[in-house]
Amino acid sequence: MEQIDERVARSFARQGFMRNLGARLIAGSAGRCVIEADWAESLTQQHGFFHAGVTASLADSAAGYAAYSLMPPDASVLTVEYKINLLNPAKGERLRATATVIKPGRTLMVARASVEAIRGDEATPCAEVLATVFVLAGKPDDPTFKAS
Amino acid sequence: MEQIDERVARSFARQGFMRNLGARLIAGSAGRCVIEADWAESLTQQHGFFHAGVTASLADSAAGYAAYSLMPPDASVLTVEYKINLLNPAKGERLRATATVIKPGRTLMVARASVEAIRGDEATPCAEVLATVFVLAGKPDDPTFKAS
Amino acid sequence: MEQIDERVARSFARQGFMRNLGARLIAGSAGRCVIEADWAESLTQQHGFFHAGVTASLADSAAGYAAYSLMPPDASVLTVEYKINLLNPAKGERLRATATVIKPGRTLMVARASVEAIRGDEATPCAEVLATVFVLAGKPDDPTFKAS
Amino acid sequence: MEQIDERVARSFARQGFMRNLGARLIAGSAGRCVIEADWAESLTQQHGFFHAGVTASLADSAAGYAAYSLMPPDASVLTVEYKINLLNPAKGERLRATATVIKPGRTLMVARASVEAIRGDEATPCAEVLATVFVLAGKPDDPTFKAS
Repeated sequence: MEQIDERVARSFARQGFMRNLGARLIAGSAGRCVIEADWAESLTQQHGFFHAGVTASLADSAAGYAAYSLMPPDASVLTVEYKINLLNPAKGERLRATATVIKPGRTLMVARASVEAIRGDEATPCAEVLATVFVLAGKPDDPTFKAS
Repeated sequence: MEQIDERVARSFARQGFMRNLGARLIAGSAGRCVIEADWAESLTQQHGFFHAGVTASLADSAAGYAAYSLMPPDASVLTVEYKINLLNPAKGERLRATATVIKPGRTLMVARASVEAIRGDEATPCAEVLATVFVLAGKPDDPTFKAS
Repeated sequence: MEQIDERVARSFARQGFMRNLGARLIAGSAGRCVIEADWAESLTQQHGFFHAGVTASLADSAAGYAAYSLMPPDASVLTVEYKINLLNPAKGERLRATATVIKPGRTLMVARASVEAIRGDEATPCAEVLATVFVLAGKPDDPTFKAS
Repeated sequence: MEQIDERVARSFARQGFMRNLGARLIAGSAGRCVIEADWAESLTQQHGFFHAGVTASLADSAAGYAAYSLMPPDASVLTVEYKINLLNPAKGERLRATATVIKPGRTLMVARASVEAIRGDEATPCAEVLATVFVLAGKPDDPTFKAS
């Protein structure tokens, strides 16, 4: 398994909403992040599939943390905006969002994320995302952070 | 209070994820929908504000139901895609998403949604959304639906 | 007529592509910009209407200049990204793009733009745009600029 | 060189705006399209680089024709919406837009496009686009079309 950046893992752990979704940081490296969540009744839309809001939330978080993994230690991450295309119903045992930074930058980063619904061995593409992320320099994400 | 379309209310009630968010249909009329959710620890990002995924989920649902309220009885609603700009931290007692259809159509509808964070009497704009919604004709959203 | 910011007018005049489109700065004020272009065969898609690329170009420029009008004198303007929904065929004697900044900021601004096709007294909405604009501080748009 | 679909080539040739841009269909196959345009003063923004409107227009056309190449003979193509992220200044001798359909469908298709600025042997990524395209069934793009 890839090594997950410690800062990413700590920031992720502080998100009540990611716990709510049962989301797990699965993998990560410089400029890349994978997040998964299992199906639960509390994550459904009216036909019992994953709600698009869950799909978007995982993609947005993956994009943000992919970017965050490239930022200096004293910076924090803000999503400026994203666009999501929903490609297929998110029908499966779990969702997997994989994000990659396609344009790193000092102030802005652009990331792409894909979300798949996984059933057994099959992965169906559910969504494609293009996101812009802001590097909030000089404001560490973790208020107890100390550059040592 | 505006009259909320019964079909919209029933579809909304079947979404496990909206229950999870504590989301409430506040108002609605032909081509318009307002959804709110109160702050809870389970809806937060790492700084304790509403997670952008919550903001997006409310906006997406409001846009979808604004469009759905204009659809024929035997149709169901699918979000094709949306784009969201996050304008300010979503810091408040509750979030309110207000969506309006700006282009109705037989197959596609375009809606705009704004999300505000509410603290006492103050409403801070948090997000602006532009969404494309698909009219899935001949597939009633509620499988038990009977045109009578 | 509203007073058009002199910096906006000078930057606009230096754009070969705006000349190509026959685009004119029609109005502007702090945080707002209106651009028009008349129909010409050189601006058409395959059915003789305005090409979506023309619609998008006018909207993008209007959004950029609406934001630029709020920037300090020594800054220049960069479009980070935008999303456009095409609402109706752009069929008319001329196109008019009207942009407004909905979130000013020191580094980023968010603007909305609407494009209409005009025939006689009638204006048909053709497109809706949501754009993110970057404030490039300390790099005046006009290299011959001197703060006096 | 890949074989360019004849219908695509004929539709492209009828676009006054593509001629204006000096745009050329470079390659194409089922679900894929490449369009290029050379630098000209008439395509510039205020610093002499390609205008973002040109970048967007090439990407939009490439996405539309990538989708069109997968459509039945009696259909025509409409861009519903797209989102573009501008990654680097479009500084080069020519621009190249490459589009691929990532989700074909009977009514809607989703395509991704990348635009590069080319200088000698170097290609710099300028833009990333995610587009939704509508299949207008029963309305051939070319009014003189006869299914034979």
